[in-house]
Amino acid sequence: MLWLDGRISDDTRAPFDFADRGLLLADGLFETILVIGGTPFLLDAHLERLARGAESIGMPCDRDVVLSAVRDLAGAQAEPAVVRVTVTRGAGPRGLRPPAAANPTVFATSAPWSPALAFKPQTLAVSAIRRNASSPLSRLKSLSYLDNVLALEDATRGGADDALLLSTNGNVACTSAANLFVVQGDRLSTPPLSDGVLAGTMRACVLALAPDVGLNAEKKSLSLDDVRKADAAFSTNSVRLVSPIAAIDGESVGTASGERLVALLMEGLRARVRDACGVDLFSPLSL
Amino acid sequence: MLWLDGRISDDTRAPFDFADRGLLLADGLFETILVIGGTPFLLDAHLERLARGAESIGMPCDRDVVLSAVRDLAGAQAEPAVVRVTVTRGAGPRGLRPPAAANPTVFATSAPWSPALAFKPQTLAVSAIRRNASSPLSRLKSLSYLDNVLALEDATRGGADDALLLSTNGNVACTSAANLFVVQGDRLSTPPLSDGVLAGTMRACVLALAPDVGLNAEKKSLSLDDVRKADAAFSTNSVRLVSPIAAIDGESVGTASGERLVALLMEGLRARVRDACGVDLFSPLSL
Repeated sequence: MLWLDGRISDDTRAPFDFADRGLLLADGLFETILVIGGTPFLLDAHLERLARGAESIGMPCDRDVVLSAVRDLAGAQAEPAVVRVTVTRGAGPRGLRPPAAANPTVFATSAPWSPALAFKPQTLAVSAIRRNASSPLSRLKSLSYLDNVLALEDATRGGADDALLLSTNGNVACTSAANLFVVQGDRLSTPPLSDGVLAGTMRACVLALAPDVGLNAEKKSLSLDDVRKADAAFSTNSVRLVSPIAAIDGESVGTASGERLVALLMEGLRARVRDACGVDLFSPLSL
Repeated sequence: MLWLDGRISDDTRAPFDFADRGLLLADGLFETILVIGGTPFLLDAHLERLARGAESIGMPCDRDVVLSAVRDLAGAQAEPAVVRVTVTRGAGPRGLRPPAAANPTVFATSAPWSPALAFKPQTLAVSAIRRNASSPLSRLKSLSYLDNVLALEDATRGGADDALLLSTNGNVACTSAANLFVVQGDRLSTPPLSDGVLAGTMRACVLALAPDVGLNAEKKSLSLDDVRKADAAFSTNSVRLVSPIAAIDGESVGTASGERLVALLMEGLRARVRDACGVDLFSPLSL
């Protein structure tokens, strides 16, 4: 499904300006939002991140239009779905310089979502591609995702489920599309934004849940060994929620006590989704 | 002007699939080609780089379609123009994984070009954004150009014409959209691809011209001081050809002897354009 200019269509084809800087230069941002029972989960956090991101790249972003796109498309979903809303800087003249007055393009697409995607363990392979901590984009959900695409493809070719990306500063950053966490004792740690990571909406949600399960949450740079030797490690994003990391480069990760804490976090997140969206999709899962 | 599916239109608006990975994930490549007298300059080099790039990201790329796009659009230009041909991986399902059988989107746009853009001196400001040498994209003309857009905007806000980007490995890389060269004595040096630079078509052209003007060309990592203290420094790309660098962060660059050698290179390049395209657009310029 496509939302464009206030209209929803099953066909994702529609008129478009091929001079759009989103297509030509990846000059734009997006949000991927889980929709359950027609309710977008963590909507405010997504809208706020998009607004902050737009401000940081100097792109106008009309919150009302974005909100309409997400609400209209979410409301059209009888089944659980993922809604992606994209804002580009719109059409411009040839070259890198943005037009003096940008006229952004806003559109949204949706795709079915299955609870089976959530809470699913995954294996990681360390990527040769690093997150560029010197780039503002490493902290933005910009359209520049080809690095992530290539890292993921390389990982899956090697038999892993996803890639683990280090930062150019040598610390651990994230996976191809998710934040990383480790549990060590009673501490829950995730890399700070300065290590080239996105301020994930699910990352913030999990950090907020941590005290409820007796974990002390912190943003702290992590080495690869910190993750490899952790009591537990997991990744978070809006589509997969929490994915426990079973192994890195073929070596298993985690202890029984760590896994128990991650299970408690997942249970807490399940309750948050149920409370926010009024539907408990995860009851058949034994966490 | 837009070339799409074999048709040329003055209107850049046309039907488009909003599930296109070029728009959603910057999953695609492009070439920017100077067209003079209807002839695309360095066409074979552009086509070859595009084909190599597509192969390296595992994207099908039909050379005949790309060639048609460029030739058709170039042939429609009475005045000098820049033709940009873009190839994306086409539409795909939600998420980062490419479809098993990609159906690429090929389109081309053109814009007027003026000889005044060529051989124009420029000032640079060193950017805080670095080229990610660990990423294959640092060596590809992919759609991921937002880093470059941001670096350029930052440089121009500070009063410079363009940004000078270092590589994450600390060496000098390039400007926002051009390769860098320095002249020191009789040596002409440009960073190797491993420092996160594009294999520029104009870079190759200038490297080939060097012996004609008594310069020994080499690909060598450069420090910022190597550029600052060079006899001359310049940048190269398909639109601006050679741009002598007048200053970096407000400090002037170059010596009279160095500038004379760059003038000889520009004279050689002018002759190459004239011989290839049958038109000498630069005669009014005193090089």
